[in-house]
Amino acid sequence: MHYLDNSATTVVSSKAAQKALEIMTECFGNPSSRHSMGIEAEHELNRARKIVAEKIGATGKELFFTSGGTEANNLALFGAAEAKKRTCDNIVISSVEHSSVLEAADKLEQDGWKVSRITPHKDGKIHPEDVAAAIDRKTALVSVMLVNNETGAIMPVDEIFEAVKEKNPQVICHTDAVQAFGKLPVKVKTLGADLLSVSAHKVHAPKGCGALFVKKGVRLVPRQYGGEQEKPLRGGTEALPSIAAFGVACEEFNLGGNLKTVGELNAYAKEKLLAIDGVLLNSPEDALPYVLNITAGKVRSETMLHFLDERYQVFVSSGSACAKGKPSHVLSAMGFDNRRADSALRISFSKHNTTADIDALAEGIAEGIRSLATAK
Amino acid sequence: MHYLDNSATTVVSSKAAQKALEIMTECFGNPSSRHSMGIEAEHELNRARKIVAEKIGATGKELFFTSGGTEANNLALFGAAEAKKRTCDNIVISSVEHSSVLEAADKLEQDGWKVSRITPHKDGKIHPEDVAAAIDRKTALVSVMLVNNETGAIMPVDEIFEAVKEKNPQVICHTDAVQAFGKLPVKVKTLGADLLSVSAHKVHAPKGCGALFVKKGVRLVPRQYGGEQEKPLRGGTEALPSIAAFGVACEEFNLGGNLKTVGELNAYAKEKLLAIDGVLLNSPEDALPYVLNITAGKVRSETMLHFLDERYQVFVSSGSACAKGKPSHVLSAMGFDNRRADSALRISFSKHNTTADIDALAEGIAEGIRSLATAK
Repeated sequence: MHYLDNSATTVVSSKAAQKALEIMTECFGNPSSRHSMGIEAEHELNRARKIVAEKIGATGKELFFTSGGTEANNLALFGAAEAKKRTCDNIVISSVEHSSVLEAADKLEQDGWKVSRITPHKDGKIHPEDVAAAIDRKTALVSVMLVNNETGAIMPVDEIFEAVKEKNPQVICHTDAVQAFGKLPVKVKTLGADLLSVSAHKVHAPKGCGALFVKKGVRLVPRQYGGEQEKPLRGGTEALPSIAAFGVACEEFNLGGNLKTVGELNAYAKEKLLAIDGVLLNSPEDALPYVLNITAGKVRSETMLHFLDERYQVFVSSGSACAKGKPSHVLSAMGFDNRRADSALRISFSKHNTTADIDALAEGIAEGIRSLATAK
Repeated sequence: MHYLDNSATTVVSSKAAQKALEIMTECFGNPSSRHSMGIEAEHELNRARKIVAEKIGATGKELFFTSGGTEANNLALFGAAEAKKRTCDNIVISSVEHSSVLEAADKLEQDGWKVSRITPHKDGKIHPEDVAAAIDRKTALVSVMLVNNETGAIMPVDEIFEAVKEKNPQVICHTDAVQAFGKLPVKVKTLGADLLSVSAHKVHAPKGCGALFVKKGVRLVPRQYGGEQEKPLRGGTEALPSIAAFGVACEEFNLGGNLKTVGELNAYAKEKLLAIDGVLLNSPEDALPYVLNITAGKVRSETMLHFLDERYQVFVSSGSACAKGKPSHVLSAMGFDNRRADSALRISFSKHNTTADIDALAEGIAEGIRSLATAK
């Protein structure tokens, strides 16, 4: 089996899974219960909170657990917009955000907000001056992702937020760091972020858990009400098995080491794949090496994806898993034509991948281009 | 150890925990991925969906997974209110709902909605005629819980919804069935419910998972946007380990058998506890036997709770875990004075409890009343 879809989701590490199991069957108290079983559970909760917070250079008090990256992104957008609705009337996002930002922005637009959508340049990146140009004194929030989920493009978020704050220091700056966290050093201060989203299941922890960093002093209106949990931002019993596992998975990060390994793997993949007739590179040259987006001849993405799966046990995606096969808005925004987007594949690595995975992939793609019907 | 706080949360069953482990480490694909690992994960998702749906007499298409009971309740209230905002201006709830309903209603009130809060009678129950009296042609939603989380009072939800629909058939009828599900037969058709919330961690499945039943044809506006998951109601990668475990836990239900066992345990507990001088019964006589609310002399709840914990390893709660020690709005609504509420304890059973747990509890409470300082 060659799992090369790690930007969609990752296998849970064995230590993290064991931790979840321990919480489910032994330390199963409700973190809000006031007896010692509850307090023990609360201790596990805050232990995980501290670990995750420290990884992004924040304090535990600034980190709020959610059900995932999507909830974190929704809370950032809706929470900031509602908190500023008396004085603001617009938000600014990039046009290549994850659907959880794009669709939340669509909803805000329906509700009367103006939304500016900044498109990337040919290099796949959002440029600070473009974002700054869209800011005015009534801008509530800017949201630009740190690493694009389809191409691996690393956005100059620190420069973007600096340019934004220079124009209007009141703007709340949010970055969706879901695809960067655990892969690159992500520090809220270096980025100048007021809000930052992370997700557990992209870093070898379970699905159903994420977190939003909210800088001290930044006010959001909650989205989910009930109970004193994740006070004051998010009621509801915390997903402790997944949260504790998230903490363990974060302790297993080896940013430098993994980046080197994955970087070598990416280079190897590029060399082998681009040598195949018809394969084109869509990711920027300086993209995060965990993601490699290519166009494979003229074979429709879905056709190639199933071919690789059935014949080679190679698992890749045609874009974001959340898009379920819709044409990529990211490649379109980068200026690639539909034909190129229609045959795009996203290959995404983890520390567990080896050159054997790449060899199988390259063999499959070469054979696929030779033997499959071409897209019309 | 004597865990008698099962209305706060339950231990995950060993089969359910094993299922979660299997999903985390083996069947770890993203249910939205289009390759076979994704499809296998999607199959697990829909298998669990079907099991949970069938337990409440619904179809899989009518069941939407959420991050828990709180999100399900929030989605019900906000989703129905927003869907009906053009023609409606009020909602009706009971005053003894879980905080996730009460606080969502508070937020709707802040946003301009009128909220009627129906109080229970001395019997702890909400009466149909009181609810019907609050309904008018601009009522968007009624929300009345099936079993109260603090007293175990079983509300006549079927009669309430019938009375509501008779007055205005357009009203969306929601019931929070979190404390009833898995303990009583809960059938959406018998209840006449348009919306119904359940939670996994109250029925020996993990925290971080719940579901909302939405009757075919009932329109809600989503709260969480992003991706095609739980279409069209809730974007975001599903918490598959917890969801699959929820399915397994539901397969282990033995409603009749457990209700008999727990009923006998409740009777035994009532007999032993009410024989102690100073112990008063707060739960209705005909309450669900899984919950037993008493007042223990004049000892403050928190004091007694810690005493039982430290000296007897008996774990009970002073009310809802989500209230974290605030005075009970439920007992107040039932007409009990503050003094009685200040010394209230909620004892809540599961199928795993035995008479040994009750014996330890009774011994601890008797000793506590004798030796602890009385509340002022």
